[in-house]
Amino acid sequence: MTRQPTTDDKFSFGLWTVGWTGTDPFGLPTRPTLAPWEYTERLAELGVWGITFHDNDVFPFDADDATKERNLARLKAATDRCGLTVEMVTTNTFTHPVFKDGGLTANDRSIRRFGLRKILRAVDLAAQVGATTFVMWGGREGSEYDGSKDIFAAFERYKEGLDTVAGYIKSQGYDLRIALEPKPNEPRGDIFLPTVGHALALIAELEHGDIVGLNPETGHEQMANLNYTHALGQALWSGKLFHIDLNGQRGLKYDQDLVFGHGDLVSAFFTVDLLENGFPSYPDGPRYTGPRHFDYKPARTEHLTGVWESAKACMATYLMLADKARAFRADSRVQEAMAYSGVLDLAQPTLEDGESIEAFLHIDDGFDPDKAAERDFGFVRLQQLALEHLIG
Amino acid sequence: MTRQPTTDDKFSFGLWTVGWTGTDPFGLPTRPTLAPWEYTERLAELGVWGITFHDNDVFPFDADDATKERNLARLKAATDRCGLTVEMVTTNTFTHPVFKDGGLTANDRSIRRFGLRKILRAVDLAAQVGATTFVMWGGREGSEYDGSKDIFAAFERYKEGLDTVAGYIKSQGYDLRIALEPKPNEPRGDIFLPTVGHALALIAELEHGDIVGLNPETGHEQMANLNYTHALGQALWSGKLFHIDLNGQRGLKYDQDLVFGHGDLVSAFFTVDLLENGFPSYPDGPRYTGPRHFDYKPARTEHLTGVWESAKACMATYLMLADKARAFRADSRVQEAMAYSGVLDLAQPTLEDGESIEAFLHIDDGFDPDKAAERDFGFVRLQQLALEHLIG
Amino acid sequence: MTRQPTTDDKFSFGLWTVGWTGTDPFGLPTRPTLAPWEYTERLAELGVWGITFHDNDVFPFDADDATKERNLARLKAATDRCGLTVEMVTTNTFTHPVFKDGGLTANDRSIRRFGLRKILRAVDLAAQVGATTFVMWGGREGSEYDGSKDIFAAFERYKEGLDTVAGYIKSQGYDLRIALEPKPNEPRGDIFLPTVGHALALIAELEHGDIVGLNPETGHEQMANLNYTHALGQALWSGKLFHIDLNGQRGLKYDQDLVFGHGDLVSAFFTVDLLENGFPSYPDGPRYTGPRHFDYKPARTEHLTGVWESAKACMATYLMLADKARAFRADSRVQEAMAYSGVLDLAQPTLEDGESIEAFLHIDDGFDPDKAAERDFGFVRLQQLALEHLIG
Amino acid sequence: MTRQPTTDDKFSFGLWTVGWTGTDPFGLPTRPTLAPWEYTERLAELGVWGITFHDNDVFPFDADDATKERNLARLKAATDRCGLTVEMVTTNTFTHPVFKDGGLTANDRSIRRFGLRKILRAVDLAAQVGATTFVMWGGREGSEYDGSKDIFAAFERYKEGLDTVAGYIKSQGYDLRIALEPKPNEPRGDIFLPTVGHALALIAELEHGDIVGLNPETGHEQMANLNYTHALGQALWSGKLFHIDLNGQRGLKYDQDLVFGHGDLVSAFFTVDLLENGFPSYPDGPRYTGPRHFDYKPARTEHLTGVWESAKACMATYLMLADKARAFRADSRVQEAMAYSGVLDLAQPTLEDGESIEAFLHIDDGFDPDKAAERDFGFVRLQQLALEHLIG
Repeated sequence: MTRQPTTDDKFSFGLWTVGWTGTDPFGLPTRPTLAPWEYTERLAELGVWGITFHDNDVFPFDADDATKERNLARLKAATDRCGLTVEMVTTNTFTHPVFKDGGLTANDRSIRRFGLRKILRAVDLAAQVGATTFVMWGGREGSEYDGSKDIFAAFERYKEGLDTVAGYIKSQGYDLRIALEPKPNEPRGDIFLPTVGHALALIAELEHGDIVGLNPETGHEQMANLNYTHALGQALWSGKLFHIDLNGQRGLKYDQDLVFGHGDLVSAFFTVDLLENGFPSYPDGPRYTGPRHFDYKPARTEHLTGVWESAKACMATYLMLADKARAFRADSRVQEAMAYSGVLDLAQPTLEDGESIEAFLHIDDGFDPDKAAERDFGFVRLQQLALEHLIG
Repeated sequence: MTRQPTTDDKFSFGLWTVGWTGTDPFGLPTRPTLAPWEYTERLAELGVWGITFHDNDVFPFDADDATKERNLARLKAATDRCGLTVEMVTTNTFTHPVFKDGGLTANDRSIRRFGLRKILRAVDLAAQVGATTFVMWGGREGSEYDGSKDIFAAFERYKEGLDTVAGYIKSQGYDLRIALEPKPNEPRGDIFLPTVGHALALIAELEHGDIVGLNPETGHEQMANLNYTHALGQALWSGKLFHIDLNGQRGLKYDQDLVFGHGDLVSAFFTVDLLENGFPSYPDGPRYTGPRHFDYKPARTEHLTGVWESAKACMATYLMLADKARAFRADSRVQEAMAYSGVLDLAQPTLEDGESIEAFLHIDDGFDPDKAAERDFGFVRLQQLALEHLIG
Repeated sequence: MTRQPTTDDKFSFGLWTVGWTGTDPFGLPTRPTLAPWEYTERLAELGVWGITFHDNDVFPFDADDATKERNLARLKAATDRCGLTVEMVTTNTFTHPVFKDGGLTANDRSIRRFGLRKILRAVDLAAQVGATTFVMWGGREGSEYDGSKDIFAAFERYKEGLDTVAGYIKSQGYDLRIALEPKPNEPRGDIFLPTVGHALALIAELEHGDIVGLNPETGHEQMANLNYTHALGQALWSGKLFHIDLNGQRGLKYDQDLVFGHGDLVSAFFTVDLLENGFPSYPDGPRYTGPRHFDYKPARTEHLTGVWESAKACMATYLMLADKARAFRADSRVQEAMAYSGVLDLAQPTLEDGESIEAFLHIDDGFDPDKAAERDFGFVRLQQLALEHLIG
Repeated sequence: MTRQPTTDDKFSFGLWTVGWTGTDPFGLPTRPTLAPWEYTERLAELGVWGITFHDNDVFPFDADDATKERNLARLKAATDRCGLTVEMVTTNTFTHPVFKDGGLTANDRSIRRFGLRKILRAVDLAAQVGATTFVMWGGREGSEYDGSKDIFAAFERYKEGLDTVAGYIKSQGYDLRIALEPKPNEPRGDIFLPTVGHALALIAELEHGDIVGLNPETGHEQMANLNYTHALGQALWSGKLFHIDLNGQRGLKYDQDLVFGHGDLVSAFFTVDLLENGFPSYPDGPRYTGPRHFDYKPARTEHLTGVWESAKACMATYLMLADKARAFRADSRVQEAMAYSGVLDLAQPTLEDGESIEAFLHIDDGFDPDKAAERDFGFVRLQQLALEHLIG
């Protein structure tokens, strides 16, 4: 049996995850809407450490200031009471129809101004509740048709928006970093920052990119037919893995937001291995130390019982995989297999220290490509050892 | 009827495209192998402006220096005779079994050293034949299994390799820029630079990134379920669209390398519209002015007749689309529809010139989100106008 | 310019198409809800011939009999007034949360009984309004997890349900045929009849399969990475193409329901070519003669103006493609190219009339595979001719 | 540790699997070619029960009769010596360039006649070596372009071919059944029998369909974005699961043919659960009792050591999953969870025994859909129990 999660595990959940009532493109809600503070106590009982929310998970889009403050205060009281941390806050710039063409990149400037203001106010809110990460998911920043957007202008506006928000954070002295959440499509036909790569590339062009990083989501990378663990690796290499969204996805289809591990399980194993154990050759290298945040949806076939069962399942799977990943790394057979496969060799620079290109080009090291080609890399055996640890 | 291509159109073809003999994972060649110089005269007759090649398209992997020089001289004579430009050269670090785990990121250091040397020698070759672009496609830089690679180390080595090559180009004073070619998979299960975004993100970390840009291929982005024209747009916005590979792909499957336009035709229309007409709001903005390079494969069902028919088809489709894209932009109905859709509005900054965030946050501009939400963006009508131009 | 549609074109639209208000998994409606009869007059003005609907497009799920009759009567009056045919009716067994695990294959028998009754009552309704096709889309018949369904039992229940409905139609003497609509996923993770093939295979096992056929939808087959025109071809070959749902989809993602032709345009051309011109070698062969039915959604970025623009676009695209497909078939260059490619040869049986296998096996016809392998099939040229007709 | 496989496990391998030398679209072989009989002894040592092969795995395409007989005799001697069963034989109608447009559906009739003859001769060969299954994979039966094939004619020829082969088997009194192997694409852009569903639908139209069934391959269904276990379920329900091809695939890309379990592991668990334990509600229901056949490729990065490691991995994974699937079914918590989820309820007919539709329609059973909608199906908890068994 898996042990119970504790706050040391730093598990966190979005209020919108357990709070999802089951509306989908073809169906009405299957569960009642609870108030935000009704979720917190139950989450804390399950061993959860933190929560996250969109502004409009706590108060309605058109709430007046009094309602906002009242709801926030009530939520804060609830989280304080049960010891939950509000680790991240984000803005909803996608539900209200005004955002149907985006917030920061809508073709309508008055909407862009409205969207930018809403985001800036949510930054204040994030700082107010003590969150340290501000996630920005530009789900409506995109298009269905190439002709409907000037792509250059879209990137100009995205940059303007992000630099404005990041500049504001700095100017206010908030202890807050922005984490962009890429997604290839849904709800737009094509979203402008479709993958971790595209978001990193945009950040590299920002004025205030130093406080802008990433919040990669398992299923989102997989919807672009890509390897999530590779995405985490490149984000870490670029020093930009600020937050994560763990969940499950079964192939190229609508965004499923399944329980973590209920999608591609082998990939989930290596994700946890990277999060818990870091890169094999860099024990002191970059590590992800932030929250283990789940952005999933309890299946629409479940009622409230299933909501809590699915939240527990996310954490239980993570803990099981973490145990297995540690055992995997500690196993001497695995270490031998990694050496056999040359996994640890890759950290060694290709050139000698101080070797000039000229010298390098003129050395005859007697390398025989035909003979070198006969090397058995042993990748399949190494993978099978991982599988044995995973299911053995 | 479409007009004949001329050298002013700057169409170029890889020797490996018309030279592909039809070997696939389940079949032997269906066409004979011709010598490189046998293709040039015929390509020139078709109106082609330039050619490109891998080192081993011109001489065998294990050729001695005399063979290399003899073959290169013969090819150069052939291109000179018919007025073809050698615009790009690239290295083959994927065919020989020694590269089965990659060149720059192979787990075996001796192979990395061999691969890096081969690339550097191809750089010399590129300079020698007067090419101005050096494409690097790391098709074998990747993995099938997450456990078989230390991803951090892989990016370290990729960076080392690219900086070594770019530094060498600078040190030699070559008039040459590197163009990375992303691809999500095939021949590896996951390739390390899967999309334009990931490659841009890597370039941003290079020491010599100023001479490193991109060579995006239509089908490669589409194999990651992404929008090719958006990719070109982001690359242009980042100042990194150094070269292009045009072809066709029909959905998420093996790399088809179809004739340009024989895949997603509507997407091809907007690609050509961007290449020929630039961004709608930036008449003086960044433009792609390089070769219109086709990286496709004549269908394996065709014999030599079909090889030339398919090369002609690539160019004819491009020219037809270019005519249509120009007419599309010139049509006053289209211009009105673009204005109606706000396409030209997006270039306007969201903030006023000099507007402070504080002022911006405190203005009451009387914006009514419910009313603004009723805007009819007219994107479908604009797309239908594009369709009418495309097929009308 | 394209000519205006007329009722001879037999274009029909689902009330739920123009009536979609824009709710998606991440957003609220962007358009008002109109009453069913508010759509009919406008559709008729556009040249539409017929309409189709789900029971609950016309009256609420929990309507009493008086409301049902009143609404139906009002709709009937509206369609009669403007000369619209109600050509197809279908049941909604997916929106209400009771159907969250399906109607015919829900794990809860009381729900199956309720679902089956709802379908049977909709059959009566279809007959009452004079529809000749009854579409059954089992969008909730499926699962997210393999363990949650006994697949054998699911097929038993699907068969029981279909045979009950078909038997009821026969017993009542209704002039009505059932058309199954396959879909691979969404809203369920995996739907039980994912493609045209799977539905044909189920029909082959039915007792009353003679009145059960198919309603293939463009985007649904494409969501399974498959060729829609091939699907129509196999359905026609099996004598089961009873109805069609035309729309557009851009790759493997959520169900987009774009305007017809705004997805894969080349595929749409060949779809229309098959619908209008039939199979090349079978002038008297099976043809689809039913309605040209559009099952699409006006983009959520559009308001009511865009709703009608998008409906017009569906028909205009179809008419343009039909003209082009006729010109394609009539072009003597195309006919020569088809002959060159052997397209018309495939209708000839492989064995001679009356040839015994024994004789066939022992004939030495001097066939030389190496020589035969040199045939240039000319498929690329034929495709380019199609492209020239499409965009020329 | 996993126990060693024995012949009772009925594991079989294609000679072309361990014999794959690593040629791919971008690379030359990485391993030497061994003679067929060099694989058999080693396979037998690993505990393999049976082997399978294409005609041209044993003798060259252009072999004369003496060579054919000599090679077959030598292979037979080798299999007899080590107790291996030749359980299945198939024909290669895809490697030689003559088949570039297919065998049974090539547009060239002389090629169709040649292809059909080759298949019939392979049937004789299958019978001669005592195989009981004859697999037909029509990998080249398809097209890249819709215009290049008359789809109706293609199905006519496919039917003619299959009925000819099946009729020949009957006429010769061979104890042999045909198993069709569907695949959506690769090497053709679209293959005519893309999924299990389409093949079942074709079989339903055959004259001799009683001896024609299916050989579904894990990765092939997944390349169509479909659920492999569902495919096996429908094939069993139709009485047509004659053979299986187990392997692994990681998403929508080229055909990877990974080790079984190295793709979608959760799906592999439920596949084995179905193969070993049958349908939950039908202990006496249809079961697959044939060989556990692996159609995979040892990764190209491996040399001969890796070939055997990967073959062992296929069997070890299967045995581990089989143990876990048995424990899963035997666990009383699972049985309770299945009951809670209604999994066993689905086998109960929806109508009462003998209930008339009229009676059924007029019963008021007091069903309250809103109340019934509140059922918690518990699918997530059941899946998590499966996961705990899988990795616990």
